[in-house]
Amino acid sequence: MRTFKLTIEYDGTDFKGWQVQTSRQRTVQGEIEKALKKIFGKPARLTGSGRTDTGVHARGQVAHFKASTQMDVEEVLRALNGNLPQDITVLAAQEVPADFHARYDVKRKTYQYFILNRAVRPCLDRRTCWHIPQKLNLTKMREEAQALVGTHDFRSFMAADPAERSGHKNTVRRIKQLEITRKKDLITVKIEANGFLYKMVRNIVGTLVAAGRGQLPKGQIKEILRKKDRNLAAATAPAQGLFLWEVNY
Amino acid sequence: MRTFKLTIEYDGTDFKGWQVQTSRQRTVQGEIEKALKKIFGKPARLTGSGRTDTGVHARGQVAHFKASTQMDVEEVLRALNGNLPQDITVLAAQEVPADFHARYDVKRKTYQYFILNRAVRPCLDRRTCWHIPQKLNLTKMREEAQALVGTHDFRSFMAADPAERSGHKNTVRRIKQLEITRKKDLITVKIEANGFLYKMVRNIVGTLVAAGRGQLPKGQIKEILRKKDRNLAAATAPAQGLFLWEVNY
Repeated sequence: MRTFKLTIEYDGTDFKGWQVQTSRQRTVQGEIEKALKKIFGKPARLTGSGRTDTGVHARGQVAHFKASTQMDVEEVLRALNGNLPQDITVLAAQEVPADFHARYDVKRKTYQYFILNRAVRPCLDRRTCWHIPQKLNLTKMREEAQALVGTHDFRSFMAADPAERSGHKNTVRRIKQLEITRKKDLITVKIEANGFLYKMVRNIVGTLVAAGRGQLPKGQIKEILRKKDRNLAAATAPAQGLFLWEVNY
Repeated sequence: MRTFKLTIEYDGTDFKGWQVQTSRQRTVQGEIEKALKKIFGKPARLTGSGRTDTGVHARGQVAHFKASTQMDVEEVLRALNGNLPQDITVLAAQEVPADFHARYDVKRKTYQYFILNRAVRPCLDRRTCWHIPQKLNLTKMREEAQALVGTHDFRSFMAADPAERSGHKNTVRRIKQLEITRKKDLITVKIEANGFLYKMVRNIVGTLVAAGRGQLPKGQIKEILRKKDRNLAAATAPAQGLFLWEVNY
């Protein structure tokens, strides 16, 4: 039995997220497991670094699987891309030690969120951004974002749904970097952390955008963090602006 | 009668190019003329700065039309975007003097062409780039590109089809700038000129890529220009990597 690590890009538009569903909807994990079965002649379970929601994209998702095969990694890579649909590409395949685990061994994850900040609606980028027509105040967004950097209990920024919250016993995470940049109409929010709670990035972005629209009093994000109450954060930012960018081990 | 200038973004993927066809296929001009008819209650002819081929995109196409209306430009802009499909967005509408002409008055046009230069196939960018798996030599591409800058007869780089060539009596154009840049796997070829022959950008990019692959002897592009023979240039680069970026008046 050998262990393989995959780095994966996907266009989340037409997927019901990463994780295989009992309802047999189209998922990224499901499509890759289908390809693995075709290649190796028997099922292999693919374990991702974490799930991504319906509509969320990835530039660098990581996953592992185990298989008994003589194929070298380059052959595995080619065979996978040859058997996958156009909206999933395996960027790299590597053989790793048997104890490598794509979820448990994560040291750091980076997400990027794209906001198209212009009066008129998106066109070329319509599947990969959140459209905010009102001019956003980046200075305010950056000021508020400072409160999020460092080690905090992010309970206020996790999913509202109790079923979705149940997976996290420990809600303390460390955000190492939170950068907000603008290039013409496109605002990028880049967040790097040792891990993320379910829907944490989208809830943070939703709240930062509320700050940028002038809807939050100064210092409010610090207050929201302190109160550990999901009802205080703003609405979740839509899925299609979010990219799982990089996973580090 | 008032004259309006529009700046237009479109995703060329699902269009049979810019120009209205007798065969009633879906075109950008056709869709916008349909919206104009709906808004003003009678047909208006839209004149673009030039046509773009099937699959070519635009970040800043420019066009003009004439209409008798009391609407202000902001209302025209909103009405257009409200009546257009998701793959066309009017970025700006302006009222201009009656003698403004979107094609005849062009001073300068800029195209950008995107090449994804990595071993594995594209995924998120699959509708907006040309995939070249072999590593391209950018130094060679830049060296050869130098021969194209300035005023030249670009007959060797125009469309091969006689029907497509017939539109151009004068084949002399001036390329003001030709920049080739790389950001990770993405190579951008940016070309600014006082005008372009039909398929000129795609033929230039095809030939530059041949140089980058080491398929052309040094100085070959200068030679191709000099000989004024379309058969010497390399194959036309595919449409989906090309963006009409900006039109200046």
